Amino acid sequence: MNYFQKEIKLKSHNRGYHLITTEILNSIPEIKEINIGMLHVFIKHTSTSLTINENADPTVRMDFESHINKMVPENQSYYKHTYEGADDMPAHIKASLMGASVQIPITNGKLNLGIWQGVYLCEHRNFASGRDLVITAFGN
Amino acid sequence: MNYFQKEIKLKSHNRGYHLITTEILNSIPEIKEINIGMLHVFIKHTSTSLTINENADPTVRMDFESHINKMVPENQSYYKHTYEGADDMPAHIKASLMGASVQIPITNGKLNLGIWQGVYLCEHRNFASGRDLVITAFGN
Amino acid sequence: MNYFQKEIKLKSHNRGYHLITTEILNSIPEIKEINIGMLHVFIKHTSTSLTINENADPTVRMDFESHINKMVPENQSYYKHTYEGADDMPAHIKASLMGASVQIPITNGKLNLGIWQGVYLCEHRNFASGRDLVITAFGN
Repeated sequence: MNYFQKEIKLKSHNRGYHLITTEILNSIPEIKEINIGMLHVFIKHTSTSLTINENADPTVRMDFESHINKMVPENQSYYKHTYEGADDMPAHIKASLMGASVQIPITNGKLNLGIWQGVYLCEHRNFASGRDLVITAFGN
Repeated sequence: MNYFQKEIKLKSHNRGYHLITTEILNSIPEIKEINIGMLHVFIKHTSTSLTINENADPTVRMDFESHINKMVPENQSYYKHTYEGADDMPAHIKASLMGASVQIPITNGKLNLGIWQGVYLCEHRNFASGRDLVITAFGN
Repeated sequence: MNYFQKEIKLKSHNRGYHLITTEILNSIPEIKEINIGMLHVFIKHTSTSLTINENADPTVRMDFESHINKMVPENQSYYKHTYEGADDMPAHIKASLMGASVQIPITNGKLNLGIWQGVYLCEHRNFASGRDLVITAFGN
């Protein structure tokens, strides 16, 4: 039984949706020692999130930003948590809609993702510094 | 320590929400060998998703389709990723709102679901072929 | 390899978003025996959910309730599943948007949460009794 865990700080990203599959894989080469198992990626923040989606066409990520901004708009009259800026409370809600972690099966030493799947960092704040991830791989 | 992993292809489903708990259980009878553990189900696609919800009344699944279509409508003027059809970009967004995996505790050789819980395949495309799942059970 | 699992019933909560990190930690002190691992928390219901978000300002949780109610309103003409009350079908949809489980890395005998992160019980029904959780910790 193997458990491997790394903590990394991503470089800062602009508000929007960004592919980080390569950064994750580079941080935990021990995946190749696992025959059957899991990779869990966790983000230690509440206004940023992680999801799995299409890894090819950058306009998919742009459309995520456009539509999620419409689903969770800024400056609504009912928001009470406003002292951290107009983008903050929507960022918290978006973070829970997407989620704080993703978990991907490992098969024969590799992530068993579909051909079009990648991991997105969803940066919901206008000006954020680097975000902290806890990356854990486990299995046989 | 036991790790069991299967890959299955579901039959094609119409757009909408469908119970697949039985298909999952049938594919991995080794759950009964696990006293305490986890079942992880992962879908290898970015326009379909998995969630856990009510397993009894089919109108619940119909209402999911009606409301999520309203939350993430087709043909919005800001969509740039349009060349795969009007249903495609909304399907990607819906997939991330629901999620690419579910994880359920195993207790005494059985899934420890609530009495009303089942696993849904959320098919967000109009015309999809069979979808691939990676099903992993692990525990003591 | 260690697997620990507990089932607890939370006290009943009002409709809204509530911090339950302390209840979770108190129920599974065996976390301190795990060097690298995972804590998985699962809710056995389909009209309540779990998420991770900001643990400090109570107005964040109030704004979640206000905005998610707007995203998934009651009494829509297309709802067919209405016989359990106006709050029931929206509760099912909200539950899938948030999710039935959270998974948090364990590092050196402690949950490796960010400083602002806590676990929320998201109670989507108007009048609910205590909710059942399955809490599983595993690792080396």
